[in-house]
Amino acid sequence: MRDIAVFSGSAHPGLAEEVCGHLGVPLSPVRVNRFANDCLEVQLQANCRERDVFLIQPLVTPVQEHLVELLLMCDAARGASASRITVVMPHYSYARSDKKDAPRISIGGRLVADLLVASGASRVLALTLHSPQVHGFFSVPVDHLHALRELAEHFRGSDLSNTTVVSPDLGNAKEAAAFARLLGTKVAAGAKQRFADDRVSISSVIGEVEGRDIIVLDDEIAKGSTVIELLGRLRELGARSVRVACTHGLFSAGALKRLSEQPDVSEIVCTNTVPVPDDHGTDKLRVLSIAPALAEAIRRIHNGESVSALFDA
Amino acid sequence: MRDIAVFSGSAHPGLAEEVCGHLGVPLSPVRVNRFANDCLEVQLQANCRERDVFLIQPLVTPVQEHLVELLLMCDAARGASASRITVVMPHYSYARSDKKDAPRISIGGRLVADLLVASGASRVLALTLHSPQVHGFFSVPVDHLHALRELAEHFRGSDLSNTTVVSPDLGNAKEAAAFARLLGTKVAAGAKQRFADDRVSISSVIGEVEGRDIIVLDDEIAKGSTVIELLGRLRELGARSVRVACTHGLFSAGALKRLSEQPDVSEIVCTNTVPVPDDHGTDKLRVLSIAPALAEAIRRIHNGESVSALFDA
Amino acid sequence: MRDIAVFSGSAHPGLAEEVCGHLGVPLSPVRVNRFANDCLEVQLQANCRERDVFLIQPLVTPVQEHLVELLLMCDAARGASASRITVVMPHYSYARSDKKDAPRISIGGRLVADLLVASGASRVLALTLHSPQVHGFFSVPVDHLHALRELAEHFRGSDLSNTTVVSPDLGNAKEAAAFARLLGTKVAAGAKQRFADDRVSISSVIGEVEGRDIIVLDDEIAKGSTVIELLGRLRELGARSVRVACTHGLFSAGALKRLSEQPDVSEIVCTNTVPVPDDHGTDKLRVLSIAPALAEAIRRIHNGESVSALFDA
Amino acid sequence: MRDIAVFSGSAHPGLAEEVCGHLGVPLSPVRVNRFANDCLEVQLQANCRERDVFLIQPLVTPVQEHLVELLLMCDAARGASASRITVVMPHYSYARSDKKDAPRISIGGRLVADLLVASGASRVLALTLHSPQVHGFFSVPVDHLHALRELAEHFRGSDLSNTTVVSPDLGNAKEAAAFARLLGTKVAAGAKQRFADDRVSISSVIGEVEGRDIIVLDDEIAKGSTVIELLGRLRELGARSVRVACTHGLFSAGALKRLSEQPDVSEIVCTNTVPVPDDHGTDKLRVLSIAPALAEAIRRIHNGESVSALFDA
Amino acid sequence: MRDIAVFSGSAHPGLAEEVCGHLGVPLSPVRVNRFANDCLEVQLQANCRERDVFLIQPLVTPVQEHLVELLLMCDAARGASASRITVVMPHYSYARSDKKDAPRISIGGRLVADLLVASGASRVLALTLHSPQVHGFFSVPVDHLHALRELAEHFRGSDLSNTTVVSPDLGNAKEAAAFARLLGTKVAAGAKQRFADDRVSISSVIGEVEGRDIIVLDDEIAKGSTVIELLGRLRELGARSVRVACTHGLFSAGALKRLSEQPDVSEIVCTNTVPVPDDHGTDKLRVLSIAPALAEAIRRIHNGESVSALFDA
Amino acid sequence: MRDIAVFSGSAHPGLAEEVCGHLGVPLSPVRVNRFANDCLEVQLQANCRERDVFLIQPLVTPVQEHLVELLLMCDAARGASASRITVVMPHYSYARSDKKDAPRISIGGRLVADLLVASGASRVLALTLHSPQVHGFFSVPVDHLHALRELAEHFRGSDLSNTTVVSPDLGNAKEAAAFARLLGTKVAAGAKQRFADDRVSISSVIGEVEGRDIIVLDDEIAKGSTVIELLGRLRELGARSVRVACTHGLFSAGALKRLSEQPDVSEIVCTNTVPVPDDHGTDKLRVLSIAPALAEAIRRIHNGESVSALFDA
Repeated sequence: MRDIAVFSGSAHPGLAEEVCGHLGVPLSPVRVNRFANDCLEVQLQANCRERDVFLIQPLVTPVQEHLVELLLMCDAARGASASRITVVMPHYSYARSDKKDAPRISIGGRLVADLLVASGASRVLALTLHSPQVHGFFSVPVDHLHALRELAEHFRGSDLSNTTVVSPDLGNAKEAAAFARLLGTKVAAGAKQRFADDRVSISSVIGEVEGRDIIVLDDEIAKGSTVIELLGRLRELGARSVRVACTHGLFSAGALKRLSEQPDVSEIVCTNTVPVPDDHGTDKLRVLSIAPALAEAIRRIHNGESVSALFDA
Repeated sequence: MRDIAVFSGSAHPGLAEEVCGHLGVPLSPVRVNRFANDCLEVQLQANCRERDVFLIQPLVTPVQEHLVELLLMCDAARGASASRITVVMPHYSYARSDKKDAPRISIGGRLVADLLVASGASRVLALTLHSPQVHGFFSVPVDHLHALRELAEHFRGSDLSNTTVVSPDLGNAKEAAAFARLLGTKVAAGAKQRFADDRVSISSVIGEVEGRDIIVLDDEIAKGSTVIELLGRLRELGARSVRVACTHGLFSAGALKRLSEQPDVSEIVCTNTVPVPDDHGTDKLRVLSIAPALAEAIRRIHNGESVSALFDA
Repeated sequence: MRDIAVFSGSAHPGLAEEVCGHLGVPLSPVRVNRFANDCLEVQLQANCRERDVFLIQPLVTPVQEHLVELLLMCDAARGASASRITVVMPHYSYARSDKKDAPRISIGGRLVADLLVASGASRVLALTLHSPQVHGFFSVPVDHLHALRELAEHFRGSDLSNTTVVSPDLGNAKEAAAFARLLGTKVAAGAKQRFADDRVSISSVIGEVEGRDIIVLDDEIAKGSTVIELLGRLRELGARSVRVACTHGLFSAGALKRLSEQPDVSEIVCTNTVPVPDDHGTDKLRVLSIAPALAEAIRRIHNGESVSALFDA
Repeated sequence: MRDIAVFSGSAHPGLAEEVCGHLGVPLSPVRVNRFANDCLEVQLQANCRERDVFLIQPLVTPVQEHLVELLLMCDAARGASASRITVVMPHYSYARSDKKDAPRISIGGRLVADLLVASGASRVLALTLHSPQVHGFFSVPVDHLHALRELAEHFRGSDLSNTTVVSPDLGNAKEAAAFARLLGTKVAAGAKQRFADDRVSISSVIGEVEGRDIIVLDDEIAKGSTVIELLGRLRELGARSVRVACTHGLFSAGALKRLSEQPDVSEIVCTNTVPVPDDHGTDKLRVLSIAPALAEAIRRIHNGESVSALFDA
Repeated sequence: MRDIAVFSGSAHPGLAEEVCGHLGVPLSPVRVNRFANDCLEVQLQANCRERDVFLIQPLVTPVQEHLVELLLMCDAARGASASRITVVMPHYSYARSDKKDAPRISIGGRLVADLLVASGASRVLALTLHSPQVHGFFSVPVDHLHALRELAEHFRGSDLSNTTVVSPDLGNAKEAAAFARLLGTKVAAGAKQRFADDRVSISSVIGEVEGRDIIVLDDEIAKGSTVIELLGRLRELGARSVRVACTHGLFSAGALKRLSEQPDVSEIVCTNTVPVPDDHGTDKLRVLSIAPALAEAIRRIHNGESVSALFDA
Repeated sequence: MRDIAVFSGSAHPGLAEEVCGHLGVPLSPVRVNRFANDCLEVQLQANCRERDVFLIQPLVTPVQEHLVELLLMCDAARGASASRITVVMPHYSYARSDKKDAPRISIGGRLVADLLVASGASRVLALTLHSPQVHGFFSVPVDHLHALRELAEHFRGSDLSNTTVVSPDLGNAKEAAAFARLLGTKVAAGAKQRFADDRVSISSVIGEVEGRDIIVLDDEIAKGSTVIELLGRLRELGARSVRVACTHGLFSAGALKRLSEQPDVSEIVCTNTVPVPDDHGTDKLRVLSIAPALAEAIRRIHNGESVSALFDA
């Protein structure tokens, strides 16, 4: 495998710059041309021939634009004789379309996986996929990272002696428990009752929260409704303080404002898998960088070293 | 589409016979030859040319034998110019290998899906897959049935006025709620705490069970450990009576004996997606037939009618 | 082949309605759901099983949204066991990305063809592709219509005795000549000189235009720059009157306004392959419907009749 | 190509150990997990990333278990980003299903080749395939070894001046002749008459056997019926002594016992392409190792050297 | 499946005409255009849309011309929306390249099978393939006919009481035995000894030939060397009379002349799978037509009836 | 990537020899065997294993022979474990079949691209393809060279102060303009009017030619009709002198003789992408070698350097 070449789509160039800084390689420029008829054309502006090409693009709003741009980047890299094309998707939003829960619907998580492969992707580097089965939607190798060490590092700076990590639902509880182990704290979880009447509500919290300092941990916060509902339950149960943490801080539809306005939330922590607007108007937000972890994974992929070893104790 | 032709592998010929009885078509014979070197050869002993071929085979013990036999049946049907090959898998055991939770492991659920397609399968008819994402592992259309109506029909014969349906864990709670709606009962669920220390235990039951008649509902019972643990919790919480129901009654490793020996279990109900031994030695077991449902789905597939409509109210 | 089912994406529902009217079949509804994270999900709301499915969607602005929506519709139809999936693209905008005229660029025309096939498209019905070679980008059968008869029918209502059809460039001259034959008029063509200095200009008009009534014919008008330049040349050469006609009336960036403000342009004629805004503020525009031609082609495709015969004299 | 990694399935770990000894590399461990529902899961327990992976597994009894295990190993290696996956099959039992000699039968030799490729195999190293056409069943490169040098080396230790190599049938006669050339002996062959009445019998022996020391050579001995029949004919024709040699010593159904009980058979020689039980109870058996040849072929494949050159004089 | 459409390449239009006569359908015309640069272009001159298309072309001299022409015909039929494309190859000459008996050689039999499928062939109708394993080279269904009934019918007109069918080598003996059963005669076979020194010679004839009327049966006669050698042996062994029969009468390099000049050969019988020149200058040749058999097989394929049943007693 | 191995088919071994001379590597021998039945078999007579294999073959007369030979060479290289197979086609004649301008015709340019990939080609090196869209017919990377620098170098030896480069038609005008820029001359183009009545004629020349020294430049000259027609027009317009240049000098059907007999043609220049007969009987012809350019491109492909950079100023 010859030299590495890293390109960024237009979804999150800041993250790509940061990753390249850690790798010590330049971020190669990409020209994206939009024609009068709204079609896109991509030109990779550095030699790809026999190179180990990495294309960094989280699938964030506007998702369709960023997806087609990414597919065109794969096509351009393949046509330019890249030796290997690794798609680095810090956030794979289509992963949530992972099942057929109604007749005649699309399964976007599988379809987009197939589209990436049809466009030339040789492998994928993803971070905290919505469900672990999504891994199996890809017919090419997937490296699947998480951001727990980054989040843990942040919280270790404060007193954790009275802390409980709380997962808003049991589906995410395994990750919360792993996180609690990293921090040496207790763990609890909200029990979402989606089954009574199709309305989701958090009917109970399993584990001890009264009088404790809470860290709510979720994989992604979009509209934030679930977390806000959990906050209400935590108040009722007498939690002493609350901090909120997640990997993918989408914060759509005013979620960040609504969350930061909760008086008992002292801090909101997320990573930069997706771009967070600078003007969010709250000083409670803390954005951690996953660029070092992505850079290390890219380095290992390029060198043929184990990526799973990254997560060993 | 011309005539239908139905074949059965050696996994569950009784079910195939029953399905054909409901369809009003003969079960066409299959010759499976085992050579001295232990290799298998399959001959479909009825004309397949331009026919709509259905191959019935649940992947039950011995799984590898039944899987290879099924792949050879697909190959034989393809070579014999079948117009369409539908694999009818009442039980897809490899569906449980649906994620990569350790480095360098196989994802059997996706691999077997690919093997079936590589062998010529045009579509799949499955029943109560372990996780809904498994649907997306297949690159061909999948019809995904469940057996709730059959189970509900059975329980409607008794007084349900004081009944609660209980799912052993929240992952299966959505199905339990749908079942409760069919029966007009309440619903509850055990909260498996797998997160504290990698030991799974049912720490609590969400919903009202004290003094009530319980129907425990799970998708499959293999060794039965989870259900037996739940029974202990239900006793502590003062349940009045208990019946156990599941779709796939694998009952491995003496599970049926252990379950039936629980004094407060009055009935164990499953379907015949997998063969249940005749000599199970308990009169608590009741096996319901899903043959009529499979036959109706096959009829609709053959005639191009909606299968999802089968599940409307 | 069983019944036909026609669906429309959100790009041009009016055209789809009109096509269905001519076919005498209902336009089946499609639900497009946009999640909080901007991902799309498509549900086809009529039975597709063993049906001959037609999905109508021109790739117009916003192109990426309409493309991904179309790919999801293909996926949903495939998963719903459609017998055949014909993508009806009255305008295939990505066809203009048909060559690699710079290093490391994407070839969108080929890539999108591959994406459609990867999503389940069995065949394509297109109209006036930008270059005839684009046909070869598809690995599935393509029916390639044009709209010359519709345009000719319109102009036959006026006196054509002194008329010359003029193609803005020689690349489109073959189609202009075919059009002139249909009308019984003379033909001429502008000679774009792209070669002198990379600036495109129409340096000459080949054929007789002085004192004649001109019909400018192009395949598509986007920004309209070429046509406006041709108009200047026609004025210098003493044309008596000018009408402008095209198949795909994209009219981006105020093109319609600029064209209609040319005092010597008496009429602008296009078809409805792409939606034309109602509030274009000019009474010079005349939009002809290609719905009857599309409906007839769909009918022939469904019935297995020759589509090329549609264009015989 | 980076480092080599060699894994063994459960079919013949002893051979794999021996091959690794000759290669001077460790045999990496494999964990095969059998779930309660009889499904298998494979974990390759050494880093495969960008490595040149070799998976050693002859398809011997129980064939279906070993085949599915091998397919899962390929899948795991592919998912673990192996640079190349070479399946080393010292014995490919499904190669005997190489033709369609009855309607609607499976062609297992081709199907299993396709399954291996669908599971991720990049190439195959095989030894003495049943028919040379089986090579063409694979769409990936195949290196096809034989074991004649190993067998010849063994017999060179004895006086060969009066020896004739006899093939039990003419289909294998080419290999017998090559073997005779290596030994500098004469050659003869039994003429199986399968054509008279579908009963196979050796009606004659072509070539001189009277008063000679015979080495019977076959590619594989399963039930041994053909060889035993040939022995009868050789006795009638006055052979002086008999030794029996083959590459694949399957010895099913008591074949080894029956053969060794033939009084005029002084020695039975095979190789270890398949595991030979230790407790076969005869001191006439001599098992030669093909591990050095396999190791040398693996070394050459890894280094990109010619494997066919291994067989030049 | 709608109407049938039959086309012929330029290899053997007479046979195609005859087949169509038996089918009662017209042979649709094909235009083959050779450009100045020696490239071919094919136009199928009848509607193929949704039709069941049959393309008749044996791969005879000039083989490369006929092969590329056939591939272009497949491509044209696919592009013209044929519902199914059956390649009818009465003679598949590349089938003889079926093994890799030297390093770095092509396996033409497998490659051409792949090329046909890559060009759009949905199935193949072949006649007397060189080895039965060639069937497995195709990834699409193959119907494999033979011509024994046609040949038997011819010989039944004469007294067969003293007749022996002789196969020139044991590889073809199975077919000779089947032929003898059809005729009620004895069977014998020459034993080609290819093994002594790479020179092929018929060292013996297994079975009774002295004083008998011989019918030599081979699958194909090209240069005829093997048959001529067999004739010498039959003379030595005292055969009473000799007739020669084969399916594929290639008769290259003066073979027909050489054979007919053998004084004891009273008749040479072949079929018209390949075109036999009219001016062969011998009255010993008798060409039987396989057109009725091909027509019947095509009819059954079109109607979805069993083709293998054609060969039952 | 390990060592390079270069092979030549039988189409143009002289060019391959020359390329190898420039590369400083031997031309490895190929054995092409033609059987009695006219089938071809290819043996590559040098080790290909893990090597970077280049197969040089322009598709010239007899095209079908050379095409099938090339496909067999790809197959042999793939089977021999080549690490990468680059097809070097200095002339891709099937590129002219690039559109479907009549119903039910083959699109040879796309089909042959697919056949090459189906046979194992990993990439293609082409030179001056007929239309740029043909690039998109290939699903593997294509390096697309031109020969303008070689042609320019030749003409720079003469006085160019009064020179105009003339393209026979506007389709080729872009290349003519690029050529003029290299030479520092003016440019003009004939306007082929194919549109008036389906008869092609050069009705006008756009640009200044009176009294000037003309270099006619075309991509390929087959029968030469267009150039000869242009010469007539140039005479009428008063050109002072004429030289003719092209990349692919096919010169079929006496074209070279006819061209050289034009009294005002002082020189005919082409390259050796296709073999030019030695005995062409004219001293006006000058054949330039593109072997250095091909060798440099092969060197860069092998080393992973940019090929497009070859064409920068």
